[in-house]
Formats: sequence, C-alpha cells, structure tokens
Amino acid sequence: MTVTFKDVKADLLDQIARGVMAPGTLMPNEMDLAEKYGCARATVNRAMRELADEGIVERKRKAGTRVRKAPIRQARFSIPIVREEIEAQRAEYRYALIDRSVMDVPDWLLGRLALEPGQQVVRVVCMHWADGIPYQHEERWINPEVVPSVLKADFAKSGPNEWLLAEVPFSNAEISFSAVEATQDIADHMGCFAGNALFRTERTTWLRETAVTLVRLTYRRGHRMTTKY
Amino acid sequence: MTVTFKDVKADLLDQIARGVMAPGTLMPNEMDLAEKYGCARATVNRAMRELADEGIVERKRKAGTRVRKAPIRQARFSIPIVREEIEAQRAEYRYALIDRSVMDVPDWLLGRLALEPGQQVVRVVCMHWADGIPYQHEERWINPEVVPSVLKADFAKSGPNEWLLAEVPFSNAEISFSAVEATQDIADHMGCFAGNALFRTERTTWLRETAVTLVRLTYRRGHRMTTKY
Repeated sequence: MTVTFKDVKADLLDQIARGVMAPGTLMPNEMDLAEKYGCARATVNRAMRELADEGIVERKRKAGTRVRKAPIRQARFSIPIVREEIEAQRAEYRYALIDRSVMDVPDWLLGRLALEPGQQVVRVVCMHWADGIPYQHEERWINPEVVPSVLKADFAKSGPNEWLLAEVPFSNAEISFSAVEATQDIADHMGCFAGNALFRTERTTWLRETAVTLVRLTYRRGHRMTTKY
Repeated sequence: MTVTFKDVKADLLDQIARGVMAPGTLMPNEMDLAEKYGCARATVNRAMRELADEGIVERKRKAGTRVRKAPIRQARFSIPIVREEIEAQRAEYRYALIDRSVMDVPDWLLGRLALEPGQQVVRVVCMHWADGIPYQHEERWINPEVVPSVLKADFAKSGPNEWLLAEVPFSNAEISFSAVEATQDIADHMGCFAGNALFRTERTTWLRETAVTLVRLTYRRGHRMTTKY
C-alpha cells in the first residue's frame, strides 16, 4: 500500500480535529512526518501545502508550521453552465430567448465594464427552464470589441454562456451573490410575485484589462447554492 | 532570476487567454516546458497541477494534458468571523445578545443536525452592528453533546462564533447561500420592512460524524458577497 498525500492530510486533519494537535501547536517537521508515514517527503509537503492553502495550518519560514488558532475557512463554489447544472439534477433543460439588442452602453454600465460613452454593447435576455418550470432568468451585456462575432450571433436556439466559453477560452471574473426583490418583469418570467426575494449572482468577466461581459442570473424562489468545505 | 511555478502558470494562462493554446489543444509535456522556462520539472508540475485544480486544463493518464473546452470555474469565498469582516471595512463593531435558551431540539432541526428527539440544544440569537447600523442577524443552535461548556456560556459580551472556534478547533461544514423575505421579527432587528429580500448564509458544522452547530446569518438589505476568480 502506497501512502498518498491524501492519507497524510486526512490523518493530520484527524489529529487536529481530535485536539491531539491543538490550535497553536508546532507541527513535526516534514522529514520526521515522512519517516512516520513511510512516504516521500514530497508527499508530506503536498499534504501540508493543502492544509496551508485551506487555512488550517500556518507555515512560517524558519519558524515551522503551526496549527492555526482561528482557521481561515474558505468555501469553493463551482460556477457551472446552467444547462449542465439543470441536467445534473436529471431535469430536462429548456431555453428561450426573450430579447437581443445592440445598443449604446447604458450609463450605469460604463464604470462596471470600463467602457467609453457611445461604445456599443449587445444585451441578451433569456430564460432557462428545468422540467418546464422557470429556473433562471439571465440578463447579459457583451462587449463586441472583445468578441466582434457577437454582432452576428442571434442566440435563438441556445444561450450566450456556452457560446462565449467557446469564443473566449479563458478570462478572469468577479462574482457577487445577493438577494433581490423580483421586479414585475422578472416575476412574470419566473412565475412568482413582484417583490419576492430571489437569489442573484452577478458576474463580470475580463480578458486581461478588457471587459467581456456582465451577467445577472436570477434564480427561482427558494434556490440555494450549497457547498461543503 | 529564479523561475517560479507562478511565473510558469501565468505564462501558460496568458497563452491560453490569447488563444495560442486553444481549447482542446494538447499541451507540451512537462520536460519540454521545464527546458523552455529554464526551471525544474517539479516547478512545471506544480503550475500544471494548479491549472488542473482550477479546471482550466484536463490531465489524463498517458493521453497528456489538454486545455479544457469548457473550463470548470470555481469561486472561493472566505468565511470570515463577522467581527473581522466588519473591522476589515474599518467600521466599528458592536454586538448584542437577543436571546439564549436551552431547549429540546425542535422537530425541523432533528434531521439537519442528526439528533434524536428529546436531545437538548442551546439556541442563541444575536445581532452584529457596523458603525451603529444593523449588519447581521445571527440565529444559532449548538449541540451541547459536542461542546458541554456551551451550557455555561452566556454570550452576553461576545458572540458564539469566536467562542466555538476556540472550543472546537477544526470541523467540516456545509454552507448554503440563499435569499429570504424578512420576517417581522428580523425586520425589526435589521431596521428594514417585513418581506424585504435579504441575503442569508446557512452553515452546518460537523466534528467528524456529530453536528456541532447550525447557524443562519441574515445580512442587511443590499448586502453582496463578492470574490474574484
């Protein structure tokens, strides 16, 4: 049986959880741990690095590695494509375009996308259903300077998310989660009442210094985004 | 100048972003990349591993590493202690206890915390203010079987979050984000109207198989949780 970094990590976590290695404790050095677990030092190193990345231990040059007193906890969320999110729930996915238009960038969007007045943007509004029930309302602005082909895309059959992923392979993003009260328009599309609390994610995507897109995804009432950590 | 794994990663990302390495492309092997960058193979390996962890490339045994067609994007959120969150905004933190009681576990909580009917829980309700404005409403249930000392803690001066971190050094958690309509009670505490859409996080924490706590944090109206990825 080979000892993997996951084995080492699990055992260290267990010792931390049981209080054998209490908060503040100086952990044994990697050489000693490698000997104890009967594995390569690199294996211990990787386990320690993950514990450090997850904020459970703190590594200091020369001073060694200690169990953190107040671990920095981080939750990771996958950002799926809505079609895949719906299909993963074994529901049938359906898409419909509500509106697609080319317009001058609206004032409020100037700063958000770092655009100049008079620049054009493509606005796409569409709906995503799961098993015939409204699941997500999408409102998106795309910068044609980065993706000129958007001026020819009609988004009649499928949404702009997957299309953009194929056109712009990698980019940085900022995402925020919030709660919003449904406008009458969104309520009509989502089959709820105006004023109902809906969960929203808003994402801005950048290709180095240039904004690609801003998208607002508003989920059906009661939606929860869940993860373990 | 030593070439670090971050340099290698940044350059590979840049090539992917510019389309030099398009989605689906087979990436050069690690030996060749190490020679190109003038670094150790382990340095390239770490860069590649991070790109794989982030869902940007896909590694397959024998078939090599390819740029993913639809990258799996993940967003990481720090889960801060509310006092630190408020102080990081350079606001003054204030705490107040609303209620602390010991009770039989309510029915709806049985399954959530894997408890038996008749077991006791400690319920704590408290408020966190930033610069004198309601910031977060906290409602928490704690399992005294895991932390018997909770039966003696009064939470009069400071909240149960930091207290628990000191008592239970490490644990697993499940967190979910959602939007809720403010009840009249929460609205009164938060200074908003009943029915207003509020952002909520709900977290269940486990020490191996046993539930430690379930907490509902309801944020002031308009709150956004933001991260870059």
